[in-house]
Amino acid sequence: MALRTIGAKSAAALDQELMSTGGFSIDQLMELAGLSVSQALFKLHPLNRGKRILIACGPGNNGGDGLVAARHLFHYGYQPTVYYPKQPKNELYQRLTTQLHTLSIPLTTDFAHALTQTDHIIDAIFGFSFQGPLRDPFPSVIDALSKTRIPVLAVDAPSSWDIDSGPPSEGPGKEYMPQALISLTAPKPLVRWFKGRHFVGGRFLAKSVAEKYGIDVPEYQGVEQIVEVGLDGEGEGEGKL
Amino acid sequence: MALRTIGAKSAAALDQELMSTGGFSIDQLMELAGLSVSQALFKLHPLNRGKRILIACGPGNNGGDGLVAARHLFHYGYQPTVYYPKQPKNELYQRLTTQLHTLSIPLTTDFAHALTQTDHIIDAIFGFSFQGPLRDPFPSVIDALSKTRIPVLAVDAPSSWDIDSGPPSEGPGKEYMPQALISLTAPKPLVRWFKGRHFVGGRFLAKSVAEKYGIDVPEYQGVEQIVEVGLDGEGEGEGKL
Repeated sequence: MALRTIGAKSAAALDQELMSTGGFSIDQLMELAGLSVSQALFKLHPLNRGKRILIACGPGNNGGDGLVAARHLFHYGYQPTVYYPKQPKNELYQRLTTQLHTLSIPLTTDFAHALTQTDHIIDAIFGFSFQGPLRDPFPSVIDALSKTRIPVLAVDAPSSWDIDSGPPSEGPGKEYMPQALISLTAPKPLVRWFKGRHFVGGRFLAKSVAEKYGIDVPEYQGVEQIVEVGLDGEGEGEGKL
Repeated sequence: MALRTIGAKSAAALDQELMSTGGFSIDQLMELAGLSVSQALFKLHPLNRGKRILIACGPGNNGGDGLVAARHLFHYGYQPTVYYPKQPKNELYQRLTTQLHTLSIPLTTDFAHALTQTDHIIDAIFGFSFQGPLRDPFPSVIDALSKTRIPVLAVDAPSSWDIDSGPPSEGPGKEYMPQALISLTAPKPLVRWFKGRHFVGGRFLAKSVAEKYGIDVPEYQGVEQIVEVGLDGEGEGEGKL
């Protein structure tokens, strides 16, 4: 399956359209995004392969998706731990954090230590609005993610990658290649450089809206909120993906 | 599996707690509720048994759950039609309706005709806050639901039933017995009178909150947002369910 991609500016415009004329609220979209992330993790790493999941959350919407995913993973039977070093005062993120507190899901401030205590990682640090540069504490976190042998699922983008031009030419993200990626709503141009398992989530997009933005609605199965793409061995090069 | 029930007043209190100290927004809870409803319909009535689904939506939150379910069902491949005779000015319901318009999901005002054009029905007219009496046009709708041979999935309650004391002793709901029921968050006392397949949705409830309200968190499987209960042949009588 070869899916078209959507650049950073268009992705921002699509998000805005969904939340204005589309009638979606950010709460609703974030719930569906985080649910997709949790379903991808469940496929990648079934419960019997280790229940400990470390979710690294950034200060924006990508981090919010991670918070939602943490809650769903808890209910599936995992033991999530959330690293959330920059918690904004934004009411939505505070509410999502409250939901985690109610479930007694631990938040950690020591990423290096948390890395030694987990079976899988979710990188929900930066998404399609990332423009750099990396600010503390994230350079050391990205560095650790690029070196760990524990598998990583990145949400929308491997954090520190440029949305349109992929891995940075220098800095801690230069060698960072997560084992898996979930593209939310549509793949971004960076997938051209990504090597690993690739999922798409966003089973709310109307075909008319997808056509307007030049993206594809993949073929989901059953009631699943995600689909794995690139399984047919087709290259995902420029112009094809 | 014998699940405890929660009365109308307690259900309202629990809902309030989820949205205050629990940190949930109504958008989020409604998205998860409607998703649960869509998953129950998918189990009851796979796509190959007919794609046409008529969703009857009332003026409150139960109707909102129905609007969300209609969207998900569309994305699963069904052909939903929505009967929504009393559309409140509430911004949330208007946004959910906008989402249906974007997908070109038809709204109908002729329930009797729509009944002749569908393969399954969802009753999302009244939920746990229903106190009666039925107002037009709902008496004739309930009457039609009680007489049709087309299977019905009721959301939280067979509409017109009293939440705590079950079917009314007179009026159009007296003989109304849907084929299936999905209880949201927890079963209500009316399930004592219900005969049919019974699902529970609400995979977001903390065990601590469930204990406080004297209800159970059923054992969900995999990433499913619903679970079918009462499959072990146990009676679901008072004090046991």
